[in-house]
Amino acid sequence: MKFSPLLDALIESLRILPGVGPKSAQRMAFMLLEHSNGAKKLAKNILAAVDGIQSCSQCRNYTQQPVCDICQSEIRKYAGQLCVVASPLDVLSIEQTGHYQGRYFVLKGLLSPIDGIGPDELGLDLLAKQLQQSSVRELILATSPSVEGEATAYYVSEMAKAASIEVTRLAQGLPSSGELSAIDSRTLGHAFSGRKQL
Amino acid sequence: MKFSPLLDALIESLRILPGVGPKSAQRMAFMLLEHSNGAKKLAKNILAAVDGIQSCSQCRNYTQQPVCDICQSEIRKYAGQLCVVASPLDVLSIEQTGHYQGRYFVLKGLLSPIDGIGPDELGLDLLAKQLQQSSVRELILATSPSVEGEATAYYVSEMAKAASIEVTRLAQGLPSSGELSAIDSRTLGHAFSGRKQL
Ligand SMILES: [Zn+2]
Ligand SMILES: [Zn+2]
Repeated sequence: MKFSPLLDALIESLRILPGVGPKSAQRMAFMLLEHSNGAKKLAKNILAAVDGIQSCSQCRNYTQQPVCDICQSEIRKYAGQLCVVASPLDVLSIEQTGHYQGRYFVLKGLLSPIDGIGPDELGLDLLAKQLQQSSVRELILATSPSVEGEATAYYVSEMAKAASIEVTRLAQGLPSSGELSAIDSRTLGHAFSGRKQL
Repeated sequence: MKFSPLLDALIESLRILPGVGPKSAQRMAFMLLEHSNGAKKLAKNILAAVDGIQSCSQCRNYTQQPVCDICQSEIRKYAGQLCVVASPLDVLSIEQTGHYQGRYFVLKGLLSPIDGIGPDELGLDLLAKQLQQSSVRELILATSPSVEGEATAYYVSEMAKAASIEVTRLAQGLPSSGELSAIDSRTLGHAFSGRKQL
């Protein structure tokens, strides 16, 4: 069925949202038309967020201030740890574990020469400056165990070593849930090579 | 984890979308910040759609014109059929079957006295006017078999009978897929009482 041009455009642009296929974009569009006040509010909040939220000048995480709350925290600074992650969502995931009290550096991507993503795109010059100036004693690599994640981790670890900073990497192995047979062989391989004596 | 006020507001307002819980609203918000051009386009398309799309003055379906394409079609009019549905999404579903070539009337709701939804809210005065003026020979009830759907179907069928128009109701019974044991007893009951001789 063909819709009106405005509806078609709305459905198309909803596809930008993660996990939204053609069918759910249709349902969302109709739902928005049905609830026009909520829809207008959503549109305004998108524009306000895109305009008002920027990258922290220290860690590149999203913030409304020049420097984010985490970077401003003296307790976080005192911890002497800097966790390097690929995206702001990763910061969220780590914060939700409650296991970490240090600071972050957000790459907003991973090294991928094919896609034209090099050290400059990931703000590694900013990271290098911080490794020299600040009181970081441990750099924690929390990039994913993908090929790009490993390459990025290697590159960053060399930077840290050059600055005489201890480097650690998040453990790789079996996830807490899921059957062994459902786990990919790369993960299983990591689990084997990283096995510990009991 | 607490976000900045603008991000909190964005996450909250994304919850208006169907099937979007707190977790996916977070993911969507971060994704929108990451793709600010697509996000701005989405916001503009929401506002344009909410402003530019209205209810058809004949059938109440969404349209950018005073009267929608389906209502303007002479072929549709000639069919002499009017299908009464609860929502614009239902029109979409029926159009996608390719089984129907008549016109529609969209109630945008179902009778529900408890929620203050009566005949006025469903535009039944507009429907009555059409049943008198137009060349409708068959009114097809396509409301869901819920309590509200049945009550609405009964109310509308009385209107049609008063105008001496034939009334039909979509068949109720087993869906094409799914095991018998997974079907609710109401549906199974309808399937039994509507059984046909082979
Ligand atoms: Zn920061
Ligand atoms: Zn119409």
